[in-house]
Amino acid sequence: MENTARWDRRRFLGAATAVGAAAAGLAACTGGAGDDLAGEVAGERNLPAIEWDLPTSWPASLDTIYGGAVTFAERVTALTGGRFRISAREGGELVPPLEVLQSVQGGGIPAGHTAAYYYVGLSPVTAFGTALPFGLTYREQNAWLYQAGGLEMLQEFYADTFNLIQFPAGNTGAQMGGWFNRQVNSVADLQGLRMRTAGLAAQVLGKLGVTVQTLPGAEIFQALQTGAIDAAEWVGPYDDLKLDFPAVARNYYYPGWWEPGPSLEVQISLDEWNRLPSIYQDVVRAAAREANVDMMARYDFQNTQAMQELAANPNVQLLPFPGDVMDAAQNASFELFDELSASDARFREIYGQWSTFRGSIHSWFGVAERSFLDYATAPPS
Amino acid sequence: MENTARWDRRRFLGAATAVGAAAAGLAACTGGAGDDLAGEVAGERNLPAIEWDLPTSWPASLDTIYGGAVTFAERVTALTGGRFRISAREGGELVPPLEVLQSVQGGGIPAGHTAAYYYVGLSPVTAFGTALPFGLTYREQNAWLYQAGGLEMLQEFYADTFNLIQFPAGNTGAQMGGWFNRQVNSVADLQGLRMRTAGLAAQVLGKLGVTVQTLPGAEIFQALQTGAIDAAEWVGPYDDLKLDFPAVARNYYYPGWWEPGPSLEVQISLDEWNRLPSIYQDVVRAAAREANVDMMARYDFQNTQAMQELAANPNVQLLPFPGDVMDAAQNASFELFDELSASDARFREIYGQWSTFRGSIHSWFGVAERSFLDYATAPPS
Repeated sequence: MENTARWDRRRFLGAATAVGAAAAGLAACTGGAGDDLAGEVAGERNLPAIEWDLPTSWPASLDTIYGGAVTFAERVTALTGGRFRISAREGGELVPPLEVLQSVQGGGIPAGHTAAYYYVGLSPVTAFGTALPFGLTYREQNAWLYQAGGLEMLQEFYADTFNLIQFPAGNTGAQMGGWFNRQVNSVADLQGLRMRTAGLAAQVLGKLGVTVQTLPGAEIFQALQTGAIDAAEWVGPYDDLKLDFPAVARNYYYPGWWEPGPSLEVQISLDEWNRLPSIYQDVVRAAAREANVDMMARYDFQNTQAMQELAANPNVQLLPFPGDVMDAAQNASFELFDELSASDARFREIYGQWSTFRGSIHSWFGVAERSFLDYATAPPS
Repeated sequence: MENTARWDRRRFLGAATAVGAAAAGLAACTGGAGDDLAGEVAGERNLPAIEWDLPTSWPASLDTIYGGAVTFAERVTALTGGRFRISAREGGELVPPLEVLQSVQGGGIPAGHTAAYYYVGLSPVTAFGTALPFGLTYREQNAWLYQAGGLEMLQEFYADTFNLIQFPAGNTGAQMGGWFNRQVNSVADLQGLRMRTAGLAAQVLGKLGVTVQTLPGAEIFQALQTGAIDAAEWVGPYDDLKLDFPAVARNYYYPGWWEPGPSLEVQISLDEWNRLPSIYQDVVRAAAREANVDMMARYDFQNTQAMQELAANPNVQLLPFPGDVMDAAQNASFELFDELSASDARFREIYGQWSTFRGSIHSWFGVAERSFLDYATAPPS
């Protein structure tokens, strides 16, 4: 209902301009056929030709996460009959992989595809756009963003802070905990570890004695191979095989408690967004939602195949994080959230609402979903 | 990549017709401005005005599941600037709620929104379009449909058998097991039970001594209230509260093992589909995916609220199915799948592929997703 209302209003506002343009275009044209056509064009038809590059944070070789940007770009292009043409670009091609947001904000590029939590250095609020440690799973994150007001709150924050608007356009699902060159048998084993991860996990792991570096995907393998870091996580089995992590570390931990359902997003300069015809804005929303569901399905399909390959590799040890590590990490996470709430009013405001939502939706997922998943995935007895 | 290729091919095929129509429309028009406009219209612009009713199997009062049809209809309308206008209609308004497929097949209506497994009486293959007992969760179902070839296989079957094409356009997530007027403490307690459910669950429960009736949503409450049935399941907390089930049965079981991630779908007559311009076909795909992700987010959000209300109701007993019921039901399910494979070649063909996929994706979900969900939803210690 809301969609229609919004649509109708925008269509009405847009109509005056469109009619004017159509009338100008038909100035030299007389006769009934021309009038009919003018009427048709006046509706919504004389749409501008637009071309955008879409820089991303991803190497093109990671075809699931980069694929989210490609899906978004291709669907916008298809749904506008090629009038609004978007081309995904790999990280570093136009702007550095971890500076997509700054480039959109600066007006150098109209839009990008990235993970909001790469920008926690600019504001910790960006973490909500991707994932908080011990936060929301894929479905919980979608429910929060689309239904519980999360996206509206974040869009208000992005508009005020970065002059941009963002839409969820992909998700990886619960990630793996990553590859470690030695075993983690207790919290003590984290002390002094040098690890690649991203988002607020850096500060949480910092509380547990880990030194964190946030490297872009394309730079992790070399850091792990040269011994510059002792451990690294990226996403999960499919990407990790592509990045060749099993060649340089053998202990593969789970779960990636710092990102149980991280969203990727399309970020668009508000100056560009406000210039788009309303139908293009609708197309952007649709294409982003398609990218959201498509990327998740791709990861789930590809990770399934990759996990079978990893399970058959005798050099790979698949290990759950010990209970005391999970507990210490959860405690450190909630301590950090309290500190950030004390120091940052925008974080505090969103965190209060998010935290209540998290508790209640976890309760619901603890019933039908959890009991079915536990039964279905139990090892054969 | 595939999307672009498909799109370009169709656009090319469509262009000749469009150019012809535009030229005819501009026959009376001379001068540069008219030529420019003709060029613009020739692209994809002179799109036909189409209006469709979209009958559903749902009462409009169930605004999550009926909402999937509304979302689909509104988004098609918005993305075509109102040129292709679809209106959702509640079950029974135009056709009986459980005869949507037959009505689309018969050509009486162009399209509908329903659950494929309502039509297992026509073919057991339809169950794959919704859910099989002990089958796939929401994400697993999407991965199978969109990535593992499931949708292509089913679309081939639908085309051959019903002369229609279908797209997933909603999901409820793992359902609850339903409301029982007495406790189910063992398999023996199922004997003689009269229950409302749908899909292949009817035959599985039949093997366990239950007599099943498949009633549309709007008729369940009365059957339960009058004692015509002893137990009923529909979807989950939000809908169940709307249908007032707690007023007539107090034992609320979980999980709904017969539908761990059921898809709802849009079904379209192939005669109508083949007449649509390719851009409208792309819009239908986009709107269906939006409805898929939107309905899931709505259910997750609304069920969370409703579960809190139910948990506070002293008349409601929340109970897990006993282990022997789960085991007996799973055994009966796989026995049924073997019987159907023996008697139905199309079922056998799809089941073989689906079954392998199910095993491997369950293994993957047993790692990061399960370990995180178990930790996150564990009762406070």
